[in-house]
Amino acid sequence: MPAPLQGLRVVDLTRVLSGPFCTMLLADLGAEVIKVEEPVVGDPARGNGPFITEQGEGGMTHSTYFMSINRGKSSVAIDLSKDKGKEILLDIIKSADVVIENFRPNTAKKLGVDYESIKPINPKVVMASISGFGQTGPYSSRPALDVIVQGMGGFMSITGEAGGGPIRAGTSIGDITAALFTTVGILAALREREVSGEGQYIDISMMDCQVAILENAFSRYFSQGEIPQRIGTRHPSATPFQAFKTADGYVVVAIMGGSTEQWPLFCSAIEHPELMDDPRYGTGWDRTQRYEELIPVLERAMITKTTDEWVEILSALGIPVGPVQDIAQVSNDPQILERNMIVNFEHPSLGAMKTTGNPIKFSRTDIEPSMISPNLGEQTNEILASVLNLTSDQLDQLREDEIIQ
Amino acid sequence: MPAPLQGLRVVDLTRVLSGPFCTMLLADLGAEVIKVEEPVVGDPARGNGPFITEQGEGGMTHSTYFMSINRGKSSVAIDLSKDKGKEILLDIIKSADVVIENFRPNTAKKLGVDYESIKPINPKVVMASISGFGQTGPYSSRPALDVIVQGMGGFMSITGEAGGGPIRAGTSIGDITAALFTTVGILAALREREVSGEGQYIDISMMDCQVAILENAFSRYFSQGEIPQRIGTRHPSATPFQAFKTADGYVVVAIMGGSTEQWPLFCSAIEHPELMDDPRYGTGWDRTQRYEELIPVLERAMITKTTDEWVEILSALGIPVGPVQDIAQVSNDPQILERNMIVNFEHPSLGAMKTTGNPIKFSRTDIEPSMISPNLGEQTNEILASVLNLTSDQLDQLREDEIIQ
Repeated sequence: MPAPLQGLRVVDLTRVLSGPFCTMLLADLGAEVIKVEEPVVGDPARGNGPFITEQGEGGMTHSTYFMSINRGKSSVAIDLSKDKGKEILLDIIKSADVVIENFRPNTAKKLGVDYESIKPINPKVVMASISGFGQTGPYSSRPALDVIVQGMGGFMSITGEAGGGPIRAGTSIGDITAALFTTVGILAALREREVSGEGQYIDISMMDCQVAILENAFSRYFSQGEIPQRIGTRHPSATPFQAFKTADGYVVVAIMGGSTEQWPLFCSAIEHPELMDDPRYGTGWDRTQRYEELIPVLERAMITKTTDEWVEILSALGIPVGPVQDIAQVSNDPQILERNMIVNFEHPSLGAMKTTGNPIKFSRTDIEPSMISPNLGEQTNEILASVLNLTSDQLDQLREDEIIQ
Repeated sequence: MPAPLQGLRVVDLTRVLSGPFCTMLLADLGAEVIKVEEPVVGDPARGNGPFITEQGEGGMTHSTYFMSINRGKSSVAIDLSKDKGKEILLDIIKSADVVIENFRPNTAKKLGVDYESIKPINPKVVMASISGFGQTGPYSSRPALDVIVQGMGGFMSITGEAGGGPIRAGTSIGDITAALFTTVGILAALREREVSGEGQYIDISMMDCQVAILENAFSRYFSQGEIPQRIGTRHPSATPFQAFKTADGYVVVAIMGGSTEQWPLFCSAIEHPELMDDPRYGTGWDRTQRYEELIPVLERAMITKTTDEWVEILSALGIPVGPVQDIAQVSNDPQILERNMIVNFEHPSLGAMKTTGNPIKFSRTDIEPSMISPNLGEQTNEILASVLNLTSDQLDQLREDEIIQ
């Protein structure tokens, strides 16, 4: 069956991470994504390492960073600083269902591709902008990158060791959650368009999205007045619900606050039956109140066995448990392999490669996205010929005039 | 204008966090969400603290945890262990566009509400399941909670201080990213249904979603063979791109690897002009290679001024900068207030309350979601009367038979 978004045309003006992650998801789901890039340099992410170089003399160098978030898209290189270039872009946009950009606010306007400019030529288009702080408000013109919104939005204030400094998520959750909320917004607006026949504009702020994913921290603060703090790997209200050091690594154990069966089973597994019936430790909340006295006892027990031993013992008891795995271990995890979350593919010029898969598993519309990311301008001719009916003479002329690449 | 998902009926069998966050998003966007809960106890999240109690004698106690992720839904309490209860649920499902569940795999089947059971009675329904590891693969029957997949999926292996232990994200990103991918999957399947006329099943694994948000770490590992490690607040390839201690807190500074202007401006701002032209520190990548020698110099400079001073000085130079804010500071941030990301509302029995807003800002279909979360079974009568045309006598009988609450 065709992928679920087949037939949807997306004009992608985005760069680096938040926008490209969103359009990768749309491409994975079957949309046609036309990535419009600046000639010569292209998306600045093409300059982000690490790099990989084709074998043989004159082999091209590819950014693996860029490749990991631009699969399945077409690249069209157009010089938007020239009037003719802008005209070509607007012609492509006339046939688009979706336009996405993640410039700093006002840049799209200066380029003549803001919503006010494109709505008259395509009233059905759904346009989304992603920016650090949104298109409105006192910070709207300030630049922001992932780590800035992780810091300003509150995430870093609750992530890290108790008493330690702020910690950044090891992945760019500022960009990636914005990409996910944007994808949801676009698909919701497309559904509404089926009813109303009209497009609209969606304004996503990376900092807003950080607030949205911290709902529990805000709810605790609003109801209790206490400012949530950093607490390492533990949970604010359930214990044990954290990572423990083992004889050879770390293991995560999570006993739900409401579970009455798991705590006694855990106590017997760690050979501390005396804790089992101790009323001071009856519930997850009780145990959290006595965290400081209880945890050293558990830590001394957990370090006596290996991670694999604990996973086996506690799994058999039905207690949620798992190893803290590094990226190499995850890459070889049998569950992850079974779920096709690590995809092997053949790159036309680089040979055998691996990347991560898409986690949305549909029963009927199997998605088998292309894993290849485009070279700069690789589909310029193809797209301009098919979408705008330009002839090869016209394309040659545009290329000679340095309007396209 | 009506909200974008108006007219969509969602039957929500989910509990705790991943599923409820997804259906909250759907409710925010205008869908009718019918939350089906077990009588007496309801969603186990109703038992998660902190709690807030109505004033006056016999005042009801509410879980703020539950309230923060169940706004805008209706609650229908049905005993699914009884045949009649199951029959009522299947009758409701006949009219649903979407069904979502996040039981452990096989539980939906035991309850008779798995996709195979509901497809024959409603072939157009889109059904999604969220589980720790997915419906297939060797771990599928194992229980998992957020911290387990943060550990097993690789996130914790790259989050934390350099040389320190694993750190959990201070928010439940294991649940929340699964919720976001599920929402995307549901909306994509609904779009496909417009074309094919058929529903389908979506199988989301929280662990798969962790892999999907770590794409850059995997891409670095696959291309370089080095296993990504914990590096505190810094970035793996750009420097400075991290939090610094200031005279009164922390500030985040992010200089893009490719920027040639920002580094000299930053050097002059911190009064280290000698660094500006030093070829050893020319690019973000160069600076990352010499991180150990460079950062102590920057740290000594950054600690001499307050966070506000640095934000003012560096903002004026166009350098991405921001304070590391705690939850109280974010709640009062003028940008966040301007963007309606903190919503004040009046709860019918608790009075004035606050919660976080929805970050998807549409231009035409304004969303003004209800901020009220339902009491257990609050809409049982209303929904069963309107959807199934049950009379009040029938409802009384069902209640007497302890089928509904």
